[in-house]
Amino acid sequence: MAPLARGAVTQALTPDEFEEALREHVKDYHHLHPFHRRMNTGQCSPEEIRGWVANRFYYQVNIPRKDAAILSTCPDREIRRRWVQRIIDHDGTTEGTGGIEAWLRLAEAVGLTRAEVEDARHLLPGVRFAVDAYVNFTRTRPWLEAVASSLTELFAPDLMAERLAAFERHYTWIDPKELSYFRSRITQAPRDSEHGLEVVRRHCVTQETQTAALSALSFKCDVLWSMLDAIDQAYGNR
Amino acid sequence: MAPLARGAVTQALTPDEFEEALREHVKDYHHLHPFHRRMNTGQCSPEEIRGWVANRFYYQVNIPRKDAAILSTCPDREIRRRWVQRIIDHDGTTEGTGGIEAWLRLAEAVGLTRAEVEDARHLLPGVRFAVDAYVNFTRTRPWLEAVASSLTELFAPDLMAERLAAFERHYTWIDPKELSYFRSRITQAPRDSEHGLEVVRRHCVTQETQTAALSALSFKCDVLWSMLDAIDQAYGNR
Repeated sequence: MAPLARGAVTQALTPDEFEEALREHVKDYHHLHPFHRRMNTGQCSPEEIRGWVANRFYYQVNIPRKDAAILSTCPDREIRRRWVQRIIDHDGTTEGTGGIEAWLRLAEAVGLTRAEVEDARHLLPGVRFAVDAYVNFTRTRPWLEAVASSLTELFAPDLMAERLAAFERHYTWIDPKELSYFRSRITQAPRDSEHGLEVVRRHCVTQETQTAALSALSFKCDVLWSMLDAIDQAYGNR
Repeated sequence: MAPLARGAVTQALTPDEFEEALREHVKDYHHLHPFHRRMNTGQCSPEEIRGWVANRFYYQVNIPRKDAAILSTCPDREIRRRWVQRIIDHDGTTEGTGGIEAWLRLAEAVGLTRAEVEDARHLLPGVRFAVDAYVNFTRTRPWLEAVASSLTELFAPDLMAERLAAFERHYTWIDPKELSYFRSRITQAPRDSEHGLEVVRRHCVTQETQTAALSALSFKCDVLWSMLDAIDQAYGNR
């Protein structure tokens, strides 16, 4: 299934219409990937779960780097003051804290060693290319587009809640206390997406900037979809 | 007076020798610029002080952006956890806090409005080019070189202490309580330069990386020098 084609905005939308368009954009996407559907219905083998966790780690370690790229291009101090929290959430403040660390503990819980996750030996080329494309996008595109690309988080709380429930129900071989990454994102993602949405609503008021924001969000959906394609191809049961 | 030519490292130095070479590199530099000498001996007119404050603001607002660029390229979480503090120091955590805000208060104290500083109407092309070169350097060069370029901070505490004393003594028309930017850097700069130095000592152990680090530091000295050239040219008494 190929990503849906997405139309440009033909005239400037009101902030509410624009928000609705953004929400529509992510609504029918990422979680519909065959791999995610199998994962959420308990059909993934331990090998598939491990492949997903090991590869998704590359995305996780790059999140602070893309957020720092946004900080580096964003000229608005007030936005930066809030955005920096994302970096701190992922990197943590001391050894053993933060989202990346939580992901490493998840990796251990599914039977991987830290070393084999951190040295990227399982990293698939398609996953690397997709994640690198995302980081490069945030470094080279206007900062508002980079902010808009983060709005896949609008759907993250539902996705995380569903994933957490699926893991607790179907993958009982994984210690449920090591699912803390998913739990923390259920509370962090709404705060983050609320901020991102507020910024994009306030700054994207013309047809051109709204189209660019929707296009950036499509791009980000493609990144996530493409990662799952590569993972499904490598580890999926067919 | 042109910047001094700086030799490459002809063989790998020990960490202590390398640190000494780094310290030598910045020791005889920035503060020796004729404009700085005049400033520190009380010879600058209010117009020169205002020109310096307004132009140096462009450097100040770009500091968090260059530090975010370093965060974005640095793959080491432990380094990022400490480096992020620089961004928070400059941006502040709430309205009215942080180093950029302190610089704006200095600007008001020397007789500028916030508006004329923030809209960059006094910004000289030479200052813009030098600062932009610095930010671009940190975005495009290896992260260790970007870290090394920050080591002009090794000299910052002395420079700031001298500047603070000069302002309090010679420029009594400026409310001394608005010199808080200089005061805060006297304590922040040693913490920052200590971290930067630790990173560079640990990671630059070959002739090639040590040469690259010294070259990055020369580049940064040139940035600061070039800014003062432009300011001296525009506002200096001749």
